[in-house]
Amino acid sequence: MSKRLHCMLSRTRIPVPVPCLLHQRPQTVLGVWSYGSSREFKHDSNQQDRGSGHNRRYLTYAALVTGTTLASLCIYYYAGDRKKRALLAASPTSMVQTGQLKEGLPIYTLAEVAEHATKPDRIWVTYGHGVYDITEFVDQHPGGDKILMAAGGSLEPFWLLYAVHKNPTVLAMLEQWRIGNLKEEEVSHLLSNMEDPYSQEPRRHPALKPASVKPYNAEPPLELLTESFITPSDLFYVRNHLPVPEVDPDTYNLEIEGIGVKSISLSLHDLKTKFPKHTLTAAVQCAGNRRSEMSKVKSVKGLSWGPAAIGNATWSGVRLYDVLKAAGLEDDHPGVEHIQFEGLDTDAANVPYGASIPIEKAMDPKGDVILAYEMNGEPLPKDHGFPIRVIAPGVVGARSVKWLGRILVSEEESTSHWQRNDYKGFSPSVDWDTVDFTKSPAIQELPITSAICDPVQGDNVTLTPDGKMVVRGYAWSGAGQKIVRVDVTADRGETWHVAYFTGQDKTKPPHHWAWTLWKAEIPIPAGQKQVELWCKAVDSCYNTQPEKFDNIWNLRGVLNTAYHRVRVNIKT
Amino acid sequence: MSKRLHCMLSRTRIPVPVPCLLHQRPQTVLGVWSYGSSREFKHDSNQQDRGSGHNRRYLTYAALVTGTTLASLCIYYYAGDRKKRALLAASPTSMVQTGQLKEGLPIYTLAEVAEHATKPDRIWVTYGHGVYDITEFVDQHPGGDKILMAAGGSLEPFWLLYAVHKNPTVLAMLEQWRIGNLKEEEVSHLLSNMEDPYSQEPRRHPALKPASVKPYNAEPPLELLTESFITPSDLFYVRNHLPVPEVDPDTYNLEIEGIGVKSISLSLHDLKTKFPKHTLTAAVQCAGNRRSEMSKVKSVKGLSWGPAAIGNATWSGVRLYDVLKAAGLEDDHPGVEHIQFEGLDTDAANVPYGASIPIEKAMDPKGDVILAYEMNGEPLPKDHGFPIRVIAPGVVGARSVKWLGRILVSEEESTSHWQRNDYKGFSPSVDWDTVDFTKSPAIQELPITSAICDPVQGDNVTLTPDGKMVVRGYAWSGAGQKIVRVDVTADRGETWHVAYFTGQDKTKPPHHWAWTLWKAEIPIPAGQKQVELWCKAVDSCYNTQPEKFDNIWNLRGVLNTAYHRVRVNIKT
Repeated sequence: MSKRLHCMLSRTRIPVPVPCLLHQRPQTVLGVWSYGSSREFKHDSNQQDRGSGHNRRYLTYAALVTGTTLASLCIYYYAGDRKKRALLAASPTSMVQTGQLKEGLPIYTLAEVAEHATKPDRIWVTYGHGVYDITEFVDQHPGGDKILMAAGGSLEPFWLLYAVHKNPTVLAMLEQWRIGNLKEEEVSHLLSNMEDPYSQEPRRHPALKPASVKPYNAEPPLELLTESFITPSDLFYVRNHLPVPEVDPDTYNLEIEGIGVKSISLSLHDLKTKFPKHTLTAAVQCAGNRRSEMSKVKSVKGLSWGPAAIGNATWSGVRLYDVLKAAGLEDDHPGVEHIQFEGLDTDAANVPYGASIPIEKAMDPKGDVILAYEMNGEPLPKDHGFPIRVIAPGVVGARSVKWLGRILVSEEESTSHWQRNDYKGFSPSVDWDTVDFTKSPAIQELPITSAICDPVQGDNVTLTPDGKMVVRGYAWSGAGQKIVRVDVTADRGETWHVAYFTGQDKTKPPHHWAWTLWKAEIPIPAGQKQVELWCKAVDSCYNTQPEKFDNIWNLRGVLNTAYHRVRVNIKT
Repeated sequence: MSKRLHCMLSRTRIPVPVPCLLHQRPQTVLGVWSYGSSREFKHDSNQQDRGSGHNRRYLTYAALVTGTTLASLCIYYYAGDRKKRALLAASPTSMVQTGQLKEGLPIYTLAEVAEHATKPDRIWVTYGHGVYDITEFVDQHPGGDKILMAAGGSLEPFWLLYAVHKNPTVLAMLEQWRIGNLKEEEVSHLLSNMEDPYSQEPRRHPALKPASVKPYNAEPPLELLTESFITPSDLFYVRNHLPVPEVDPDTYNLEIEGIGVKSISLSLHDLKTKFPKHTLTAAVQCAGNRRSEMSKVKSVKGLSWGPAAIGNATWSGVRLYDVLKAAGLEDDHPGVEHIQFEGLDTDAANVPYGASIPIEKAMDPKGDVILAYEMNGEPLPKDHGFPIRVIAPGVVGARSVKWLGRILVSEEESTSHWQRNDYKGFSPSVDWDTVDFTKSPAIQELPITSAICDPVQGDNVTLTPDGKMVVRGYAWSGAGQKIVRVDVTADRGETWHVAYFTGQDKTKPPHHWAWTLWKAEIPIPAGQKQVELWCKAVDSCYNTQPEKFDNIWNLRGVLNTAYHRVRVNIKT
């Protein structure tokens, strides 16, 4: 990023965006963003502005980055780092008041701050009244060069996006590098122009329990999950990586481009009228579902999901296969390896959410990947991708990109943070000091899992008149595999009881996308006061779940598929 | 079966065949075999005689059965049965001399024995000099009506096929029901006409370690498995359910018939010249691989395989898809659900080995199911199905039918014992008293597994100069999933070491059929004298293995995919 460009930006009403403090390894740099106007940033490489027709509220945060994405929740990752632990030990967070005016320090203007945007000039950022020289952080820390995206500007826009950063740990760390105060008038001007990117989020069902509010991530109460085979849309878990974009369906356009296709643009009307409508029932699950259980073994980084970050809905839309065919893509076109999806949800640097799926999945005529415009028979709710989202059934939810804006036929995976540096599994002994994200494949199809939904942990349960405990739950396996058995035990595996299925689609593997709901009635010895229930499932490959989290622990807390264990009391 | 028919048969030189004592639940009865000549038995239903062109040595045992298959190894199953245990307690096996002439008992002719072929007439069978009334067995025992197949004839032909029956336990049980002696001349006539169906088995590599000799089942030494990515044909494990048939390649014909196809017959020349040749590398694994480990938790029924009942070979042949297309089968033809395969290997009742795969697998243009005529670049060895066998990659070996004689396009699964009453998984608490084979799906695609091949249990291992133990093994997952990681621990999971791959195909999931060979170098603390190594693998669905056998135990001892654990000593 040029110093000149920084200066230009510092003169606009748009604050220079500053990403978070990230310690991960560098991502591939696609190119350099060049400045047009606050609504017309363009990327030199394949990150083209999608232009009009899309309501891009978050373009008000000017893009000025040299990386492809803003790494979300990066401070979250940071908490396990040795260097940070040392830092924190040296500075009690309770005493730090980051960003407040500090008497006696030099005063700088935004223009001066902007002159410190490269290592030779030192790297400066601002937060509130504070000016910080974070050059040492950049040098010392693996992945510290991500902070170059922030060089010369304010952290606030990013912290508005990722509220989780505004915590004492992060603030204390930042204050370590305090060098001065920002000029008073500039502070107020900057903050007065700051807009909350979450100010227009949709209303949500009050029963949803948020794991984070900005961005919004929430799951329904576990007991509700087995109430119906189809999860009601307003109780379906929400996993947003960024603010929900406002999209005008009348001007919406889906762009398709890349290798082996002619670039085409399809309106919502085109999609609904020019392609056959295809409906399927599919479960969608977050890779971090049940993370809170894994974190009991050892801390992991990520939203603390319970077991309800999964839902089962009916999705209607057009087959991706049909759309790609319409764009001219032939089966087995040389060089085509991945289909990339970009959302209309963007970060403060205008980088969209992105993910990709392998061409084998995308172009399988029976793979059932659809571009959905309906959920449970209604237009997609805003939280679930209105007006168009991908449904890649059998695949981790992260690839079913919501608010779909662009499809890129490519020889490589999406370069997004979420494809390359997140949503991957690692060996239990890999930690944040040794992790190499290039060494593990991006999670696509998910392994088998199951959970007990009712009773929930700590419940006081009334047995049936014949002394049985009624247990309900779900089971699901990715890759279109079908659940063929669920075993439940109330005596730590001494005796296993086969559950019967209360909800299961008739589709066949490997095209079985929906979840299975089950119920078991477990005889409990008279007089027993407490029970620990375990469940495990078996799919049509006869794959089953690992017993414990210890040996599947991974630093990102994904793929939490160990036996689900629930302790309950018996009412006497 | 009519008494008249029995009497007819008892007048031929062919002894009436008698199957084994089976306690399983009844199989579907397809129809009644009718008598033509000793080489021309026909089945009323769809078990048609395949006529000339097939060498059917075992037709010398006349078919006279009312079930669809002879249940193989049935006494094997029997050993866990409560009733038998009670019986055995009452009769010390060491004192019993089954089938010997017993003075003072009535003498019967074969014709008289044959008159006792239905329950109202009592059920009689012969063995050596002995005549036995087994009516009580039939009445008392679930599945005992299978013995009706034996009504009125000799057990010997079956016990020649399944040598495992000739053991003291079984013989003692039989002697319980002794009622008389067979007329002396008929005993010698009967036995002199008995032919050993295994007299013409192929020569085998002396390194193969048999789990049973008749039928021949053997695996190579485990240490040899990781020597090469492609398992040499003569070291590839052999899993035969019946004697190896002699097939004349010049008169061989493959018949294709059933729903949605015109019946066609293809010679070996037709197969080799009329269809494109397709080559793939695929691992084939027995469902019972590693059964000996599961049986340590609790006894299971089946051959005691080590971890080498798996191999990886290059297979060439024609796509099943192409052959079915040539027979006129259309994609999604109504009613077509399964493709059944029949081998040319038959039991004493002339019932062929049989299995089926779902149509989704058979007709997947990328499913790579082939009718192979080459293994590792040479014509198939006799033990591996000469001249034609199925290779259904990613699927349990039992469906890759060897010595393929007939393909039946059907609305239902193969009715064979091996499809319906074997090769299925069950919950750990299901035993032989409660098992219902209709409740579990036939194993098709196999779950993820891995094993340590070198060192083997009990080895004295020399560490590398820098104190590391070198560990080698294989990993594989069914359904075309690729191995993405293998973890090895030498401290019971405290530390996991990621293995590197020494052999892996470049094909992509879900069309990745070959196994993966791996190697790990594990640092061992100085002074340690013993090590227990564990390995586990992760596939492209991020499915992984269960830790222990306890919770995946099943009565047939299949799907033995728990962590492989090997204890070795360290040379000092």
